[in-house]
Amino acid sequence: MDAMENILTRRSVRRYTDRPISEETLHKLLTAAMSGPSCVNARDWSFLVVRDRETLNRMADANGRPAEPLRGAAAGILVCGDLERAFPRAKEYWVVDGAIAAENLCLAAHALGIGSVWLGTWPQMDRVQRQRELFQLPEHIVPHSLIALGYPAGEPEARGEIYEADRVHFERW
Amino acid sequence: MDAMENILTRRSVRRYTDRPISEETLHKLLTAAMSGPSCVNARDWSFLVVRDRETLNRMADANGRPAEPLRGAAAGILVCGDLERAFPRAKEYWVVDGAIAAENLCLAAHALGIGSVWLGTWPQMDRVQRQRELFQLPEHIVPHSLIALGYPAGEPEARGEIYEADRVHFERW
Repeated sequence: MDAMENILTRRSVRRYTDRPISEETLHKLLTAAMSGPSCVNARDWSFLVVRDRETLNRMADANGRPAEPLRGAAAGILVCGDLERAFPRAKEYWVVDGAIAAENLCLAAHALGIGSVWLGTWPQMDRVQRQRELFQLPEHIVPHSLIALGYPAGEPEARGEIYEADRVHFERW
Repeated sequence: MDAMENILTRRSVRRYTDRPISEETLHKLLTAAMSGPSCVNARDWSFLVVRDRETLNRMADANGRPAEPLRGAAAGILVCGDLERAFPRAKEYWVVDGAIAAENLCLAAHALGIGSVWLGTWPQMDRVQRQRELFQLPEHIVPHSLIALGYPAGEPEARGEIYEADRVHFERW
């Protein structure tokens, strides 16, 4: 798909068919996720890829009601920050870098015909803590966002106007 | 350009020709920026677009040494969070949402043949404060990231392997 069209037509997809996502496709998605910029090129993230149904359900339990789509997803990817790799003078850039990785992942999914929905985790610390406990993550690995993935069941909803002129200021505020 | 190729070939571009970026192209870039997901669809961002040379220089002054490319850029876009629109129960999602918008902007630029470099602002609060003062931003508008844009001068550097297998965990940590 054309790159600009891909950006403009990506939608959150919450219902999926039973079709699995192949290893090869997962590799492409993760490569896209690792392709974004990061602060001083720290690449301060890690990815936890889950396809086991029972584990997906436990991830959904841990991430609150909006995470229900995960129960029908072909895969879930927990994007995590890695504080040991984060820029020492401003470690919170890990939040920015994790978001870049996750957005690249969602855009790549759409390009490959896979639907995704972004399930917010950080900064909701109850969710962060529950994901951390579920996977017994090391202290320096911080759950950032959870992406549910699957081949779409049904058509996406129509989308309204994207551009909002009053959110743009030229030269001065 | 193909969407996946666009994601994988985007590089930071720090040197630009004198060619200006048209209004129409800026509109496309900003539409892409507004096309990403945001927490509960809050769309909690705003964009300050600068093409005036003197103002670009002052933005560079305010954002530290890595912001030097801005002095030769055709445009700079300060991506800001809007705390009045942010999800009330977890306002810090504005940081995630701003990063999504900025990454979409950089990817759209690359798709249109425009180079960009992401100049980190938040969480370096000295930079945040200086950008805020420069533009006399309202209290609820928080500088997030500064994107320098221009048509590339010269070829981008070669890129090493993107995928790192040891950053990916399957089913468990």
